[in-house]
Amino acid sequence: MTTNKIEIFDTTLRDGEQVPGCKLDTQQKLVIAERLDFLGVDVIEAGFPVSSPGDFNSVSEIAKLVKNASVCALTRAVEKDIEIAAAALKFAKNPRIHTGIGTSDSHIKFKFNSTRDQVIHRAVLAVRYAKTFVHDVEFYAEDAGRTENAFLAEICEAVIKAGATVLNIPDTTGYCLPEEYGAKIKYLKQHVKGIEKVVISCHCHNDLGLATANSIAGVVNGARQIECTVNGIGERAGNTALEEVVMILKQHPYLNLETNINTHLLYDTSMMVREKMGMPVQPNKAIVGANAFAHSSGIHQDGVIKNRETYEIINPEDVGVTESAIVLTARSGRAALAYRAKKIGYELTKIQLDKAYNYFLQLADSKKEIKDNDLHTIMKNVDKFSKIAVA
Amino acid sequence: MTTNKIEIFDTTLRDGEQVPGCKLDTQQKLVIAERLDFLGVDVIEAGFPVSSPGDFNSVSEIAKLVKNASVCALTRAVEKDIEIAAAALKFAKNPRIHTGIGTSDSHIKFKFNSTRDQVIHRAVLAVRYAKTFVHDVEFYAEDAGRTENAFLAEICEAVIKAGATVLNIPDTTGYCLPEEYGAKIKYLKQHVKGIEKVVISCHCHNDLGLATANSIAGVVNGARQIECTVNGIGERAGNTALEEVVMILKQHPYLNLETNINTHLLYDTSMMVREKMGMPVQPNKAIVGANAFAHSSGIHQDGVIKNRETYEIINPEDVGVTESAIVLTARSGRAALAYRAKKIGYELTKIQLDKAYNYFLQLADSKKEIKDNDLHTIMKNVDKFSKIAVA
Repeated sequence: MTTNKIEIFDTTLRDGEQVPGCKLDTQQKLVIAERLDFLGVDVIEAGFPVSSPGDFNSVSEIAKLVKNASVCALTRAVEKDIEIAAAALKFAKNPRIHTGIGTSDSHIKFKFNSTRDQVIHRAVLAVRYAKTFVHDVEFYAEDAGRTENAFLAEICEAVIKAGATVLNIPDTTGYCLPEEYGAKIKYLKQHVKGIEKVVISCHCHNDLGLATANSIAGVVNGARQIECTVNGIGERAGNTALEEVVMILKQHPYLNLETNINTHLLYDTSMMVREKMGMPVQPNKAIVGANAFAHSSGIHQDGVIKNRETYEIINPEDVGVTESAIVLTARSGRAALAYRAKKIGYELTKIQLDKAYNYFLQLADSKKEIKDNDLHTIMKNVDKFSKIAVA
Repeated sequence: MTTNKIEIFDTTLRDGEQVPGCKLDTQQKLVIAERLDFLGVDVIEAGFPVSSPGDFNSVSEIAKLVKNASVCALTRAVEKDIEIAAAALKFAKNPRIHTGIGTSDSHIKFKFNSTRDQVIHRAVLAVRYAKTFVHDVEFYAEDAGRTENAFLAEICEAVIKAGATVLNIPDTTGYCLPEEYGAKIKYLKQHVKGIEKVVISCHCHNDLGLATANSIAGVVNGARQIECTVNGIGERAGNTALEEVVMILKQHPYLNLETNINTHLLYDTSMMVREKMGMPVQPNKAIVGANAFAHSSGIHQDGVIKNRETYEIINPEDVGVTESAIVLTARSGRAALAYRAKKIGYELTKIQLDKAYNYFLQLADSKKEIKDNDLHTIMKNVDKFSKIAVA
């Protein structure tokens, strides 16, 4: 794989929905799936069909609806799971079965009470069986992040021989540091026979706040798919946030890695997912948080007013946010006050600005934020009476 | 500096408070400062005294209150700022003045309409002036992330000669990738005369979701202080999250880097800050989010019930969370149902469990979450009537 295209594998409807408080009905999932397809994701993981009749139905309806993306269904390395996934994907234009098994010693011993050889055997059987239904079979080596590299390479080689088209290397517990995760991908590129025929995929969890960095380390070292969710939702601390990895690749053109995402739809998509899923996004969330492009300190506001790029590396419009906000608080300076005053119709002389600023500071120390209404009050005092209290 | 101790510089009350909607009064700041001191942070950045009389007062009161941590005040490279900061820090046991100036070409040209030589000159004057008030002077090279390394080294060398004790290398716009940020710190370690006498500090912003990874890359390459906030709050997408970097260092003992933080207080501190500041934390926030230790998918629940470490790398108790939650949803399996049923008093036979599970799945497909109340209903049906609908 020498392409510079990074496939975006969205799992908002599977790993994202796998969250307390996040249950969606089929109709809601269809609306989100249609939007993801329009956004330009390459793969939509629609669910885990064997888990419940409702989930089977959702995957089946999404498979019928989606026009461009591949539609993927999760299974364990279990025949029944695979059969049911294949049935749910029957009408997909580009169906993918995602099957796999835990490969770390912790998973092999405690979860399966099994051995490495048995796990390889089950993995190969699962991939072979999935291939009898669909061409596109992704294999996940669960807990790959804590799996010894040599064994990971062994099982990867075995499933490639069995027909896997994509190898998912999940950092299931969110433990890896970026350097370590990147080195793991590099190791596989160097040691697995046949690796050039398949796509390596990064599936990172955010337990230590490193999912995004790990995914980027993965693609820099040769992976060509990132598994992610809108707003980074998912089990525990969530998955890699789609909007973050997409914007990192876009803002660092020297990496020479591209996605198919229409970034102008990122903000709206984020809003749709948070509303439908009832999962709030904190104000300081990167790219899509309410404050992501808001400036309130005086030093920063002054800089942004002079030249946006002083403090903003992303043009808010590129992600669908209409304007960066200059918010007035007690930390704001004269430049911000003049800027916002001008926006609502006041062109101030230097002396007027000084007076207004003193009054502004007194008010701002007692309020969280100075709104346009407050500004009108301040300006009235400056213009008519020139009676501004001095701090 | 060959120590393996990483100083935690908390800027919740300065960079964190610099956020729309986050205004705190002095009393609230004092409560948070006291908690931060108790948590074990090494430095508390208390505010930007010149910005408003209210902020001056807060810094002054915090300086009197704090027992162990250094108390730090922010200034621009401006005499008046430094004088006012020194006055606010008058009663601090360990006062630190944090002064600095933009060093990237973007800042020098658009913000200051100045030249590199003039900027070095202003930086040196500011550090020298601050040294006339306090011994401990931290210099920030604003937008160091986009500053050419050779010039950054030049200005760092000049301020060390002028007496700076700490060098803050901020990625002000959150642009750097971890490898790049780490390389920048390494470059300074190798090229700045006198660097061994000072502490290098990482101050990273989260615009692309990389603040945590960048800070870790910084300390791995020789920095010995991390500037961070509780819950990662701060300007735009926020700062490095204190709880994330602290737990990364704790969970990766092979890095041989330690902090002084009492991790058992992390969750309570997070709750205090979100409540006092009115800044919500999303459920999927690492370490301190409501779902950070919640498991709802069947595969994961089964694993965690067999052995916690299958899916959890952090013992929730280590960060002050009392128990990992097994949440029942349509994605849950038999093991989770049996586990939760047992918790509320039902020991099920295999046949009873199969029956209960079928009924459970129907109910779960129509609800976000199955609570204890629902379980009692299910169990009554299993026990008394054995009349369970089959899906």
